Amino acid sequence: MGGPVLSPTGTPAVVLLSGGLDSATCLAVARAEGYAPVGLSFRYGQRHDVEVEAARRLAALHGVEHVVCEIDLRLFGGSALTAEVEVPKDRDLSADEIPVTYVPARNTIFLAYALALAEVRDARDIFIGVNAVDYSGYPDCRPEFVAAFEAVANLATRAGVEGDDPIRIRAPLQHLSKAEIIGLGTRLGVDYAMTISCYDPDDQGRACGRCDSCRLRAGGFRQAGVADPTRYA
Amino acid sequence: MGGPVLSPTGTPAVVLLSGGLDSATCLAVARAEGYAPVGLSFRYGQRHDVEVEAARRLAALHGVEHVVCEIDLRLFGGSALTAEVEVPKDRDLSADEIPVTYVPARNTIFLAYALALAEVRDARDIFIGVNAVDYSGYPDCRPEFVAAFEAVANLATRAGVEGDDPIRIRAPLQHLSKAEIIGLGTRLGVDYAMTISCYDPDDQGRACGRCDSCRLRAGGFRQAGVADPTRYA
Repeated sequence: MGGPVLSPTGTPAVVLLSGGLDSATCLAVARAEGYAPVGLSFRYGQRHDVEVEAARRLAALHGVEHVVCEIDLRLFGGSALTAEVEVPKDRDLSADEIPVTYVPARNTIFLAYALALAEVRDARDIFIGVNAVDYSGYPDCRPEFVAAFEAVANLATRAGVEGDDPIRIRAPLQHLSKAEIIGLGTRLGVDYAMTISCYDPDDQGRACGRCDSCRLRAGGFRQAGVADPTRYA
Repeated sequence: MGGPVLSPTGTPAVVLLSGGLDSATCLAVARAEGYAPVGLSFRYGQRHDVEVEAARRLAALHGVEHVVCEIDLRLFGGSALTAEVEVPKDRDLSADEIPVTYVPARNTIFLAYALALAEVRDARDIFIGVNAVDYSGYPDCRPEFVAAFEAVANLATRAGVEGDDPIRIRAPLQHLSKAEIIGLGTRLGVDYAMTISCYDPDDQGRACGRCDSCRLRAGGFRQAGVADPTRYA
């Protein structure tokens, strides 16, 4: 659990906050729309804890509450992000396959927790930073997945039984390219120097520059014509 | 994580195993259908740990692997089963309301973890013991919820992207009354003395006899004409 409740006043919402570029932009979108969001992050056996620390700093910067939930995805193994499998470097990004960095059912688990938190906080909006580029083989980043989870959300909860105010899974970056996301976030004042995207950062939180995530990010800054503030190893 | 892998050979499956009457019957159904299931239980800040212990004994009895996942639903508060709220006794069971024992998004979270485990174990069948009677106001026990989660499961995972062998959320008790479930389980050799249904057992795991769950269970044994093996306080 994060620190004291700092959220500004406004309509409650939950923002999944990984500490990466996309979720940081998502948080800025939610704030710009007038929501008073709570950021939700997970410790799930990542190789490094720098992501959760980045999420904490982003929440503090926006003056919003931050909840960190401990879950043990290592139980399930099967991914380079949680187990002792090497993160692939310089991979062919156009390859039509699910990469080993895929964590089984991760976004389903994250959204399930977000739904519980939304229900307790009486929030109707859950923001998730999935997008078309990040799909790159992850099945649980696709628009049809988000739509299907929204249907579950409205059947699973009090809102679905009692309410005529349904829960919305908001994916405002869904159809944006990485460059468009960076352009949007830059207009909204996101400090991307605070974000971490690398799958395999070093001990000082510096990016490897060669994993899928680093390369998508660097390409996005280039295409957006925005200076890349990433610290590389 | 449970003990060594004990599962019999057969088609892999995941059975959500709470240690209660319904999930014990579900496990027996999966075994009778020839599956080699792994039982999945959760420690989620219940008032008592007797349920997980009952699940462990049931898995051992059937010779199946048992995985216990620690999750911290107390983060979310909002339920008599996880927080310091009194469990209601002698409640009007016909009342059309969601009881305080409802845990926000619980079955969504449980099924999300089951989905991750199924993906890692290459299982296509996830068994959950929800049923029409247990609905009694819980939105996430309804058939439409189960169907919606199955749609999510097939969009969220490798199976949904790569496979023509979809994931099935199996709810074999969905349309059975408590008495019919007990009749079915009795034919399949379930030892209901090993199960715990009470929301508020005492320190020795004896049932209160007065919470919703105890009363539904006791009524089921009466109607089924089966001797009730429950130890009451």
